[in-house]
Amino acid sequence: CSSTTPITATLFPGDGIGPEIAESVKKVFTTAGVPINWEEHYVSTEIDPRTQSFLTWESLESVRRNKVGLKGPMATPIGKGHRSLNLTLRKELNLYANVRPCYSLPGYKTRYDDVNLITIRENTEGEYSGLEHQVVRGVVESLKIITRQASLRVAEYAFHYAKTHGRERVSAIHKANIMQKTDGLFLKCCREVAEKYPEITYEEVVIDNCCMMLVKNPALFDVLVMPNLYGDIISDLCAGLVGGLGLTPSCNIGEDGVALAEAVHGSAPDIAGKNLANPTALLLSGVMMLRHLKMNEQAEQIHSAIINTIAEGKYRTADLGGSSTTTDFTKAIYTMYDEMS
Amino acid sequence: CSSTTPITATLFPGDGIGPEIAESVKKVFTTAGVPINWEEHYVSTEIDPRTQSFLTWESLESVRRNKVGLKGPMATPIGKGHRSLNLTLRKELNLYANVRPCYSLPGYKTRYDDVNLITIRENTEGEYSGLEHQVVRGVVESLKIITRQASLRVAEYAFHYAKTHGRERVSAIHKANIMQKTDGLFLKCCREVAEKYPEITYEEVVIDNCCMMLVKNPALFDVLVMPNLYGDIISDLCAGLVGGLGLTPSCNIGEDGVALAEAVHGSAPDIAGKNLANPTALLLSGVMMLRHLKMNEQAEQIHSAIINTIAEGKYRTADLGGSSTTTDFTKAIYTMYDEMS
Ligand SMILES: CC(C)[C@H](C(=O)O)[C@@H](O)C(=O)O
Ligand SMILES: CC(C)[C@H](C(=O)O)[C@@H](O)C(=O)O
Repeated sequence: CSSTTPITATLFPGDGIGPEIAESVKKVFTTAGVPINWEEHYVSTEIDPRTQSFLTWESLESVRRNKVGLKGPMATPIGKGHRSLNLTLRKELNLYANVRPCYSLPGYKTRYDDVNLITIRENTEGEYSGLEHQVVRGVVESLKIITRQASLRVAEYAFHYAKTHGRERVSAIHKANIMQKTDGLFLKCCREVAEKYPEITYEEVVIDNCCMMLVKNPALFDVLVMPNLYGDIISDLCAGLVGGLGLTPSCNIGEDGVALAEAVHGSAPDIAGKNLANPTALLLSGVMMLRHLKMNEQAEQIHSAIINTIAEGKYRTADLGGSSTTTDFTKAIYTMYDEMS
Repeated sequence: CSSTTPITATLFPGDGIGPEIAESVKKVFTTAGVPINWEEHYVSTEIDPRTQSFLTWESLESVRRNKVGLKGPMATPIGKGHRSLNLTLRKELNLYANVRPCYSLPGYKTRYDDVNLITIRENTEGEYSGLEHQVVRGVVESLKIITRQASLRVAEYAFHYAKTHGRERVSAIHKANIMQKTDGLFLKCCREVAEKYPEITYEEVVIDNCCMMLVKNPALFDVLVMPNLYGDIISDLCAGLVGGLGLTPSCNIGEDGVALAEAVHGSAPDIAGKNLANPTALLLSGVMMLRHLKMNEQAEQIHSAIINTIAEGKYRTADLGGSSTTTDFTKAIYTMYDEMS
């Protein structure tokens, strides 16, 4: 794709603060002259009164057709009997890898200043199979499914990512000392793929040990690849190291080059509609989307404008200790962008 | 138990550095005049040439009879086809709760200085069922089993622990938004028990969010209770916050008042036999054992001697940045103990 022909991308603003932070992305991208036409679709935990639906077929088709999209938060009610829309999208669109870069933000101080890693999570199976049942009263079981196909696919993605992004090491995270068959298969697939990438160092780390190493010395890690639930846990842990889910982007990768970038934080119903939300995670996810579209120059410039605005510290939302509104913080970013160009 | 009649306790030194650090505990306890007779048994990943066994029936009977014991590390070979001895002991002795206190050590600096929490892990079921099979070639599954009985038992232990140890809050850690049936049952049991303890604040935290909160602000947590695998992961994460598994004790609780204290770090074969191992985790586990035996005075004094020796910083093993041998560090502790009395 050239960066002058406009690209059509799907936009799911989502629940709660979703619409506000989506507005922020649109505004920053427009100011930066990013040649994207947004095709906006309503996908939400609240039924759409117009369509009487949580998620229409058209919304899915939009991503399938455009092959690229951006997604805000969608609430996942616990025990409400219906599946998380986040998962439904992953499943319907066969988004097999979830990529979460995690790096210390210069200018936003946490206990860590040396984080620079990428978690790559298998996104379709494992503990997320949805297969559960009661055996007898008081005894329930859940099935964790690991397949050779999905494991090879995500391993291949991880090694290819490492190679094309100048990364040196891939760590496969597992608990094969306990789940010898499932996690054992996952490791076997990683090893097979590793052989095709002799230039990338490959290692295997047990998940409990990985978590300990991450909090002691995250600089030990580079690219991490793992089954679904471990990816869920470790990506949040890593986000915590650099400030939390409000600051970390993600992108879901599907077959046929589909990419759905996604802010993975919650929908924050308590502050929804109050112009208080921090749009950083969605903005940085948007930047991942631009990189995926090879709009590298604009991606890097917008990225710098976001990082510099946070570093400057004059405009920050409440979650980062500031008192700016979403719109003021957004304005600070596109003003910064203008000044930089 | 009075602290003057000698108590018989089982001792499993274990693999690798196990015998050296067990020696250290025996030495410190003897110097402190702790009235314990150790009944030592060989349980190891290496077959005992005398008994031709990894684990004899007598070793199990010893714990069952004495109802109290201390255990060093045992290696868990990955993919060697036989079960971890650690798990075998938990299973055979029905050690249903694994208690891991985790607190910042004054004098041992990490990025955190405000950790003071207890993880209580269900220790018998969940992802550790050992039930796995291949469905068809390339498709494997593991069963996670949650029962009402085991969940109630560990929840009861956690709330009782909180109440009797001056703790104010119990957080149940789960992923019931995905595993609605298994983790849902676990939560249901926790809620039932919570109702019997109105003086303890009860909350439920999704595991991914829990990990993020732990690395951002561990002071938010007090007592955490959770299914087996989450306990494995979170207890290691927490250990990492305060310096690692070399510094954190644990104790396994069984039916009929059985308690098997345990150092949960590895057997460190690379430094085994070299007088370099850090005995702190096993010593602190020994202290947990003494508290369990209500030998509180000696427990607190030995505890202080360990903490003060580390804080003083003159004698530290290599893993803590020092150059002391195991025996010198041990000597420093019992010398400190003598000076304090
Ligand atoms: C909301 C929840 C179902 C989801 C998950 O568990 O995958 C979230 O935690 C995430 O990481 O995107
Ligand atoms: C060695 C391993 C089987 C064990 C576990 O997973 O429980 C260990 O990590 C632990 O926490 O005691």
